[in-house]
Amino acid sequence: MTPFIDYKVFQNLSYGLYILTSAEGEKKNGQIINTAVQVTSDPPRVSVIVNKANLTHDIILRSNIFGLSVLDAETPMTFIGLFGFRSGRDIDKLAKANFKTGFTGCPLVLDHALSVLEAELIDHVSLGTHSIFIGTVVNTEVLREGSPLTYQYYHEVLRGKSPPAAPTFDPTERPQSSRST
Amino acid sequence: MTPFIDYKVFQNLSYGLYILTSAEGEKKNGQIINTAVQVTSDPPRVSVIVNKANLTHDIILRSNIFGLSVLDAETPMTFIGLFGFRSGRDIDKLAKANFKTGFTGCPLVLDHALSVLEAELIDHVSLGTHSIFIGTVVNTEVLREGSPLTYQYYHEVLRGKSPPAAPTFDPTERPQSSRST
Repeated sequence: MTPFIDYKVFQNLSYGLYILTSAEGEKKNGQIINTAVQVTSDPPRVSVIVNKANLTHDIILRSNIFGLSVLDAETPMTFIGLFGFRSGRDIDKLAKANFKTGFTGCPLVLDHALSVLEAELIDHVSLGTHSIFIGTVVNTEVLREGSPLTYQYYHEVLRGKSPPAAPTFDPTERPQSSRST
Repeated sequence: MTPFIDYKVFQNLSYGLYILTSAEGEKKNGQIINTAVQVTSDPPRVSVIVNKANLTHDIILRSNIFGLSVLDAETPMTFIGLFGFRSGRDIDKLAKANFKTGFTGCPLVLDHALSVLEAELIDHVSLGTHSIFIGTVVNTEVLREGSPLTYQYYHEVLRGKSPPAAPTFDPTERPQSSRST
């Protein structure tokens, strides 16, 4: 048997869409991620995957805290674009969003969010272009009822793309100039 | 601010549903997981989260290989029940399923599968009750077109539960006797 990598297989994996945030002193940032999963139930822990080139990656590594907002299915593309296709090195993304400062000091974005959580980093794994950050969840809040935005809906209905910095980027597709850092 | 953990927040996270398999010589097993994510694009790597009490966990640790089948949205609960609520220590789950042996030697379950992939373990992280296994994808196959089964659909339409061994188990719910190992 000759092994073969068909990137279409990876499109079958299901995800949500989230805003990942962190803060170190006055410096704070947020970015879109699709890869947030619950790792253990007791204690509650979650993992997120972040591109090493992204500003949020650096801030999490220094501050050891991160926040997550679960986006709802009716989140407009303009809002996703603010957090997903711009770099926090160029603009203050959070200046254009409603957020509150959580228990850990992390900004928690409230716009289009069903719920928020914040976590303290306990481990991270370096894997080439990306890191897996693992945190113990120390605070949560359900903001309202609703359906979460799925990555499938983002792709198929909103016609959203996976930028090159995403773990789900398909290198066999035409290169894009957009980025999310 | 007093921190608070509301387990309802974790129900907002989105996942698919997969059969995770592994094999070491004649010993092979499979189980349901919801936590499979793509970690990097180049090289393509995926991570899965497995309860340490599960037989598949032990086999992956010894064999350093794992396989994934992406279940389609029309997978019947009886099939999920075979892999999700029974232990491979009690029955040969794969005797009741159609599978093929992949490039790595891993069984790849074909029933109700949109696609399959197999990976070679490069790292794992021990986190209390569960481990994160990270593998480089070495072989893939798209079997057919269709919509993947989501964890939300499993819960809301099929009325499926998260057993105590799942990372998404809610300890504030009534205890269950079912298990998935």
